[in-house]
Amino acid sequence: MKQSMTLIPTLREIPADAEITSHQLLLRAGYIRQNASGVYSYLPLGKKVLRKIEEIIREEMDHAGAVELLMPALQQAELWQESGRWQTYGSELMRLNDRHGRDFALGATHEEVITSIIRDEVKSYKKLPLVFYQIQNKFRDEKRPRFGLLRGREFMMKDAYSFNATQESLDEVYDRIFTAYSNIFTRCGLDFRAVIADSGAMGGKDTHEFMVLSDVGEDTIAYSDTSNYAANVEMAPVITSYEKMDEPEQELTQVHTPNIKTIDEVSAFLNVESSNCIKSLLFKVDEEYVLVLVRGDHDVNDIKVKNVLDASVVELATPEETKSVLGCTIGSVGPIDLDEVTVLADHAVASITNGVCGANKEDYHFINVNPKRDFPVATFEDLRFIQEGDPSPDGEGIIQFAKGIEVGHVFKLGSRYSDAMKATYLDENGRSQTMLMGSYGIGVSRTLAAVVEQFNDEKGIVWPTNLAPFQVHLIPINIKNEDQKTVGNDLYNELKSQRFDVLMDDRQERPGVKFADSDLIGIPVRITVGKKASEGIVEVKNRKTGEVFEVNKEEIVDLLQKML
Amino acid sequence: MKQSMTLIPTLREIPADAEITSHQLLLRAGYIRQNASGVYSYLPLGKKVLRKIEEIIREEMDHAGAVELLMPALQQAELWQESGRWQTYGSELMRLNDRHGRDFALGATHEEVITSIIRDEVKSYKKLPLVFYQIQNKFRDEKRPRFGLLRGREFMMKDAYSFNATQESLDEVYDRIFTAYSNIFTRCGLDFRAVIADSGAMGGKDTHEFMVLSDVGEDTIAYSDTSNYAANVEMAPVITSYEKMDEPEQELTQVHTPNIKTIDEVSAFLNVESSNCIKSLLFKVDEEYVLVLVRGDHDVNDIKVKNVLDASVVELATPEETKSVLGCTIGSVGPIDLDEVTVLADHAVASITNGVCGANKEDYHFINVNPKRDFPVATFEDLRFIQEGDPSPDGEGIIQFAKGIEVGHVFKLGSRYSDAMKATYLDENGRSQTMLMGSYGIGVSRTLAAVVEQFNDEKGIVWPTNLAPFQVHLIPINIKNEDQKTVGNDLYNELKSQRFDVLMDDRQERPGVKFADSDLIGIPVRITVGKKASEGIVEVKNRKTGEVFEVNKEEIVDLLQKML
Repeated sequence: MKQSMTLIPTLREIPADAEITSHQLLLRAGYIRQNASGVYSYLPLGKKVLRKIEEIIREEMDHAGAVELLMPALQQAELWQESGRWQTYGSELMRLNDRHGRDFALGATHEEVITSIIRDEVKSYKKLPLVFYQIQNKFRDEKRPRFGLLRGREFMMKDAYSFNATQESLDEVYDRIFTAYSNIFTRCGLDFRAVIADSGAMGGKDTHEFMVLSDVGEDTIAYSDTSNYAANVEMAPVITSYEKMDEPEQELTQVHTPNIKTIDEVSAFLNVESSNCIKSLLFKVDEEYVLVLVRGDHDVNDIKVKNVLDASVVELATPEETKSVLGCTIGSVGPIDLDEVTVLADHAVASITNGVCGANKEDYHFINVNPKRDFPVATFEDLRFIQEGDPSPDGEGIIQFAKGIEVGHVFKLGSRYSDAMKATYLDENGRSQTMLMGSYGIGVSRTLAAVVEQFNDEKGIVWPTNLAPFQVHLIPINIKNEDQKTVGNDLYNELKSQRFDVLMDDRQERPGVKFADSDLIGIPVRITVGKKASEGIVEVKNRKTGEVFEVNKEEIVDLLQKML
Repeated sequence: MKQSMTLIPTLREIPADAEITSHQLLLRAGYIRQNASGVYSYLPLGKKVLRKIEEIIREEMDHAGAVELLMPALQQAELWQESGRWQTYGSELMRLNDRHGRDFALGATHEEVITSIIRDEVKSYKKLPLVFYQIQNKFRDEKRPRFGLLRGREFMMKDAYSFNATQESLDEVYDRIFTAYSNIFTRCGLDFRAVIADSGAMGGKDTHEFMVLSDVGEDTIAYSDTSNYAANVEMAPVITSYEKMDEPEQELTQVHTPNIKTIDEVSAFLNVESSNCIKSLLFKVDEEYVLVLVRGDHDVNDIKVKNVLDASVVELATPEETKSVLGCTIGSVGPIDLDEVTVLADHAVASITNGVCGANKEDYHFINVNPKRDFPVATFEDLRFIQEGDPSPDGEGIIQFAKGIEVGHVFKLGSRYSDAMKATYLDENGRSQTMLMGSYGIGVSRTLAAVVEQFNDEKGIVWPTNLAPFQVHLIPINIKNEDQKTVGNDLYNELKSQRFDVLMDDRQERPGVKFADSDLIGIPVRITVGKKASEGIVEVKNRKTGEVFEVNKEEIVDLLQKML
C-alpha cells in the first residue's frame, strides 16, 4: 500500500480528551476517529489490525469446534421480554421503534436471539452439544463512555454460545473455549491472566474473566507470582495459616481512649500492632444484624460474608442502626458482652492473644482481649480480602496484585435463558429436558486497545509482529531523488511479490516528519532508502529494539524473513 | 466440518411466506432464519457463503486502489441535518435516542459520516484522490420487506466513497470501481448487466446499476442481444429509423367512431394498423400544457419528455384538465386544429401517411391524417420507450428485455454532499475548492440471494464452485458400518490435510434423507461412501451435471483437483 492512497492522519499533539495511552496513541497515529461519544470509526490502519485480531479469533474458535454464524443487531423486544431483560437491562440497552411502532433493541448481546433460534431448530439430544460464535458490533449505552475503545457505546465483540445436554458436556465445552481464549490472547502477545470471577459459589469454576494486566484497568486481580492462579480480588480465598502467639493470657481490662476511633489511632495510642487489634464491623444481613471480626490489618470481604451466611443482601449497618443496636458509634464497636448479635470472625482473629477491641462505649477500648475466652464466636471463617504477600490459594507462590482490563469472559449460564425461553430437548428416554448454556465473549476492539496499552514506547505504538497493520514500512527519504525513488519502487514491488505486507511512504514530506510518523504508527520493520541508494544500500531498523543495520538491497528479503 | 457439530436445519416443506426461489431455498437448505420481518440470521452455511462473497469484494476493491475502513452504525442526527437528509430520508431511516435524549440514526448509508471525517482530515489536493470502502450491516426500514434477503431491513452492504479534486479524477476512479464491480459479479458467476441508470442527462455515464438478470427482479432492463449495451428501460434512447410509406396522401376526413376510445378499438373499427394510428397524450409540463404524439404501437416515455423540455415536473393531464383545455375526453384527443397547445412528436410519427387520430370531439376521429400537412409539430424528438426488437442504441444488435435484481450501484455524487457539508481542499494555487465525490454500493446479502436465484434446480441450490460453503460433501451412508466409518473418516482427514473444505455427514440418518439434504444444500461435489467401502471404492457425484463416477479412494484427490 502506498501511503498517498490511504488515510493515516497522524497528530503531533495529544488530543485533550484522551486520558490513557491507547486512546492517545490510536488517535495520534491515525488508527481511529471519534464520531460521537463512545462511537468510533476505524480508519484503514485500525481496520487492518482489527481484521488480524478477528482472524486469530476465528482460527482458534474454529479449532475449538465452534461454528460461525451472524445474527442481526435489530432484536424484537418480545425476545427480551421473554428473558426478562427488557426490564432489567436498564438504560444501557438501546431501544427504538420501527415504522409500525414496534419495539426493538439494538443487540447488546445475543443470548435471546440464539436461544430463540435453537429452541425452534434443535429438539433432540443427538444434535447437542452445539457451539456458535459471531463477530459483530454491539451496542451498549454506557453512562460514561471513556478511555477510547476500552469503554465505548458501539464496539466490536466476538460472542459465543453453547447448548449442552449435560453439565459434563457444558464443562467440557467451557474448557475448550477457555483454552481457545488463552491461545487467542497469547497470540495477540498480551500479558494476561484468566481470572476466577464467580460471584456465586466461592472459588467456583463457573466463570472466568480474561484480564490484560494494565495500570489503566478498572479491576484488581490477585495472582500468584509462580503459578497460573489468578482471581478477581473479591473472589480469592485466603489459605494463610496463623500462629497463635506464645504468651500468657492477661486479664481483660477496659481502658480510656479519648477520641480514638480507627485502627491506626488505636494502634498508635495503645502502642500495639494493628495485627493485634480486632476490627469489628456491624452488618445488616437480610434484616438481621451480624458482627464480623477481622484482624486490624485486614479488610472484610462482604461477598465472603454473604456466601458464608447464604444471604441475599449484605450491607454495612448505618451509624444510626449501629447506635440503636449497640448503643455506640461505629468507631467503638466490639464483640464483648453482646446479647442478640451473632459474631462471625475471620480465621486470623482466632490467633490473637491479648488483643485490643472496641468496648461498645464511647472513648473506651478493651485490652488483653482473648477471643473465645472473652466473647463467643459463632464460627471462624475465611471472611477477609486476600492481600499481597498472602500465599496463593492454589498453594503455589505468593499473591501479588495487578490492575486488569477485561478482554474476555467465559460463563456457564446453566438454564438461566433456556428455562425462561423454554429451550428444551428430548433425552435418550424421550423425556423433555432443559438445555444448559454457556456464554463466551471477547471484546475485539477492546483487545486492540489493550494491545496498544502493553506495546508502546515514548515514540508511539510498537506492534507485535502478527498484529501490525503492515510488516514493513518502506521510506524513501526524498522521492524527488531518482535513485531513491527507483530503489524504493523496486524494493516495494519485490517485497510485495515475496508476499510481505508493505506500506511505502511515498509522500513528499521532510524526513523528520516521515520518521516521527513511522515511529508513531509502529510497524515492526522500517526500511529507509536514503543517500546510499545509489550504491544499493538501505537502512533497516527494528522498531522494537531500535537496532539499525545497513544492508545491501539484495539481502533484504533474507533479513526480513529472519526478523518477521 | 462434521455435520453433527454445526446447524443445518433443512426443511422438507416450502415455507408458506417464501414467494421466490432464493428465499425458499435459503430457508429450506438451512442457510438463513428470519428473526423479524426483513431481519435475518445467517446460519453457519449462510455465513460461510457471505464470507466468500466478502473476500471476493475485498480482493477486487483492494485491487482497484480502495482502502477498507469501518464506520459505526450509530450516526449523530446533526450530520444528517447538515446534509438535509434527516428530513428527506423519511421513515426508511431508523432513528433512536440515546440515554441523554440525543437523536441518532442507524446507518442506512454513510455519505455523511465519511464526509465529516474527510473534511476534518484532508485539506490539500496532494492527498486526493482517496477511495474508501467498508462491509457492514445497514438498516433501512422498508415499508414492505419481502423476498427474503432481496429486500430486508437489516442487510449486509459493501459501500464505498471516493473524494476527488477534479472531474477527470472522479471519472477515472468511477471507471476503476466499475471494472472492480464487473470482476466481482463475474467471479460470483452471475449473469448480470451494467445498466445505464442516469435519471438526469439522457444516456449519461454518471450512474450505472449492476443488475442480475432474473424474473423476480423489480426493474426492467433493455439490453442488446450482441453487445454490452444495457440500460434501465426508461433510460434507453431509440435510434430506430422509420421509412415513410410510399403512397399518395388522401384527403383529411372526419369519421364517426361511436364509443371508440383506445388505439386497439380504433385500429379494429377502422381496420388500420395500430402503427398507423397517432397516440396523443396531453401533459401538464411545469404549469403549461403540451400534447405529445407517438405511434399507436409505442408508449410515451415521460422522462424523455421532461428532458427534451428541460422541465421540472411532467404529469399526464387529468380528465378534467383535458376537458377544459381540449373540450373532450382523453380517448378523443388529437393534434388537429389546436391553438394554444404545443405539439411534440416522436420521430416515428413523422413517417405516418394517411394515419388516424382523435378529433377532439366525442365519438369522432380523423382518417387520412398526414403530420405537418394537417397539423404543425413544434419538434420531432425521441419521446417513446424503447421496445424489444428495436436496434440497440450503441448500434450493435437488437434490444431485448429482461427483469433485473439490482446488486450494485455506482454513482457520481459530484458536490452533493461536499457542498452541503463543506468538504473543501486547497488546490495547487491555494484556492479553496469543493471536493467531488462518488458513491459505490454492493448489496452483499442481496448478491447471495441473487446467486441462488440463478444457481438452482428442482432439487435445491447448485453453488458455483468459488461460492459454495464447502467444496466436498462426504457422505458415509451408514456410520454404524465399520468399513464405511473408517473409509469416511480416513477420507475426511486426508481431504482436510490436502486443504479441501469438506463437510462430512456423520449423522445417523437414512440414506434418502442424507442425499436429499445434500442436493438441497448444493455443495459442488458429493462423495458417497457405501457398500463398496470395503473394496476402497467410493462414488463421486457432480451436483451440477449429475454425473456419477465410481472411484478408487486413492484417486480421489486427483479427481477433485480436476473437478474443483
